[in-house]
Formats: sequence, structure tokens, C-alpha cells
Amino acid sequence: MPIRRAASRELLDRICRAAAELIVEKGFECTTLTEVGRAVGLAKSGLYHHIQSKEDLLYQVMRHGLSRLDEGVIAPTRAITDPAERLRAIANRYGEFILGSRDGSGVGPQLTTLIHESKGLSPEHLREVARSRLYFYKYVAATMQELMNQGRFAQVDPTVAAMSFFGAMVWLARWYRPGGRLSREAVIADVVEMTVNRLILPAHRSQGVRIG
Amino acid sequence: MPIRRAASRELLDRICRAAAELIVEKGFECTTLTEVGRAVGLAKSGLYHHIQSKEDLLYQVMRHGLSRLDEGVIAPTRAITDPAERLRAIANRYGEFILGSRDGSGVGPQLTTLIHESKGLSPEHLREVARSRLYFYKYVAATMQELMNQGRFAQVDPTVAAMSFFGAMVWLARWYRPGGRLSREAVIADVVEMTVNRLILPAHRSQGVRIG
Repeated sequence: MPIRRAASRELLDRICRAAAELIVEKGFECTTLTEVGRAVGLAKSGLYHHIQSKEDLLYQVMRHGLSRLDEGVIAPTRAITDPAERLRAIANRYGEFILGSRDGSGVGPQLTTLIHESKGLSPEHLREVARSRLYFYKYVAATMQELMNQGRFAQVDPTVAAMSFFGAMVWLARWYRPGGRLSREAVIADVVEMTVNRLILPAHRSQGVRIG
Repeated sequence: MPIRRAASRELLDRICRAAAELIVEKGFECTTLTEVGRAVGLAKSGLYHHIQSKEDLLYQVMRHGLSRLDEGVIAPTRAITDPAERLRAIANRYGEFILGSRDGSGVGPQLTTLIHESKGLSPEHLREVARSRLYFYKYVAATMQELMNQGRFAQVDPTVAAMSFFGAMVWLARWYRPGGRLSREAVIADVVEMTVNRLILPAHRSQGVRIG
């Protein structure tokens, strides 16, 4: 990547992070481009080199979050052959994405709150964002279905199981406060235990005691 | 209750339901009192007999949902002595509250979406609503803790388990669409299975084969 483009990408990342924080704090309606500019040290005119409009800002912030999700959770797990191993890797990586435990800079909390601001997107951008989210839902549900086809999944509908997993994870971003009784790692481990591990059955279940 | 007060209460209920639907559809910011009045056949001046301001409308809508939650989920389960039975009853009733399967008039989807509009409340009302929600969280977590104290709960922190349960339930209101492949009853049963049943251990666990 040419240096200029890399620098521009880095600045857009900073704009997206600052905007995400402001939107989560104040709501999209009440967030102004002037404030976003101020947070990254740019005049409104400077900001317009990177963002076309307020709607475009929301869209860029969501795209930013979704591409981090792809890089951190989807892409690194796609090649794992065993569905149980893949599901555990997705769940642990998604937990880290949500709580940002890997490098301390999670965008998960913002992304999950931003979902509720989707009304601010243009119909076209709304469709694109919805498509990306649906892709991720289906990726998890398909992995659970694969386990079920192999007789290695609990008697729970894979779609319901996948959506319950997402519910628990998204909610995590809302209630968890770092620095309390529970470490990020312990909380992620428990959510993964409940929503994933306890649904995976051993590859070859004991059929009772065989005689002879 | 005197007839006048009962009629007034019934009208306030209708106002709250109509307002909740509008707020979920358009967001609180974009909902006007005129529209809420129109939905229940009242002029804005008539509405002001029941609602003091737009902020008061949001507060009344949330109070309405929280008192339905108390009547439908908390109060009827409080006297159940066995914590496993109590937890299952809470979970099933909460699922029905969320999806409205009992009488087809669930306020759960609205209530869960409205949580994200809490910014619109006055600080005092926000504290009151937060207190009610916290009460419900603690009620579920305490029931799980009781099971753990009796050695009947999986190795998962009761707070994390309770919040994951809420996450799965709240998310249910967002993703589930009636009339599809999955019935309300089947979906509720699967969420309860994942987030509650599979964490409850038998009262007396088999200690393996005893010899002698």
C-alpha cells in the first residue's frame, strides 16, 4: 500500500473509533461532525476529505467494525476442518473481539451498540450492513448444523442455538465492566462454555458398556 | 378500583402500547405526541390528561412494560420453593413475555428495544427504571446461585449465566419472526434448554457404581 493511502486508512480508522465512541455515548442523532473532527484534531472541512456526510460517517463506522470482525474472527477460523474446533475458535475470538481483550482496543462494544442506530443508514447501506451481519450469523449456524449432521450437537435447533450465542455475546458488551470481580478471560470462557461447549457432544459417544 | 380509574388505566395501557410500537418503528427522537394521540384516537390536548410530556411518555411506556414483567414473570414464580423449578418457570414465562405467546399481546419486544432509548429519560426516571431491571437480573442470578450452593449448577459463574440468559432472551425479540419454520413454543423451549436446563444438575448426582 502506498504510504499516502496507508496514512489515509490509518486516519479513517481513528475517525471511525472516535465517532463510534461518541455515537455510543450520545446517540447518532445527537452526534455532530464537528465533535468527531475535534476528537481527531480535524476541522469539519478536513473531515470532509474522508467522510462525505453524517450518514456516510455511520456507514464507515459500521464497515470499519465489520471488517475488523472479518479479520479477527471469520477469516482466521475458515480453514479449521473440525467443526467443533472451528466453533470454539469462532466463539473465543468473537468474545475477544467483543471485549477487546487481545490488544485492548476492542471495537465490539461499539459495533453491537451501533446495530441499534441502523435506522440512520441509507436503504442501500442498510442492506449491505445487514448482509454482512447475516453472513456471520449463517457462518455460526452452519458450523453448528455441521456438528448436528455428525451427531455431535445437542438437541437444540442450530439457528436458535446460533442466535442465542449471538444474544449472549452482544449482551456481554452491554453489561461487562472491566476491573470488577470477573476477568475478561473468565467471562468469555463462561459464555463460551454455556453457549458452545455444553452443546458439543463427543465425536464417539459411549454406547453404554459393551459386553463380550 | 373505581370505574373511572379503571377506564383511565385501560386508556393509559393503550397509549403505552401504541407509543411503544411507534418508538420501536421510528425511534424515540422521531416519535411525536401528535402521532401517539392519533393512534389511540385522542387529540394532543386529550393526551395531556394522561401524559405530562414526551419524556413522561417514555417513562410511562417503560413502567408499563416493567409492571407487566412483574405481574407475568416475577410475582407468579416467587413462591416456588425449589430453585430448579423456579428457574424453569421464570425462563418459560419470560420467553412468553418476550414473544407474547400467552395472549398474543407481548410487550416484550417493545420493552427490550426501548432499553436502547433510555437516554431519553430524566436522570431520576432513568435510575428508577435501571433499579427495576437490576432487580430482575438479581432475581435470576440469585436463583442460579441457590442451585450452585446446593451443588446443582454447572461450573459457570451465576452472574455470567444470568446475563447470558438475558442476552439470549432479549436477542430473541430482535430476530424471531412469527409464521416461519420455528414456532414460538419451539424457540422458547430451545432457548430455555440452552440457557437454563442444561446448566441444572440432578439433585443427587450418581457417584458412579457403588460396590458392596
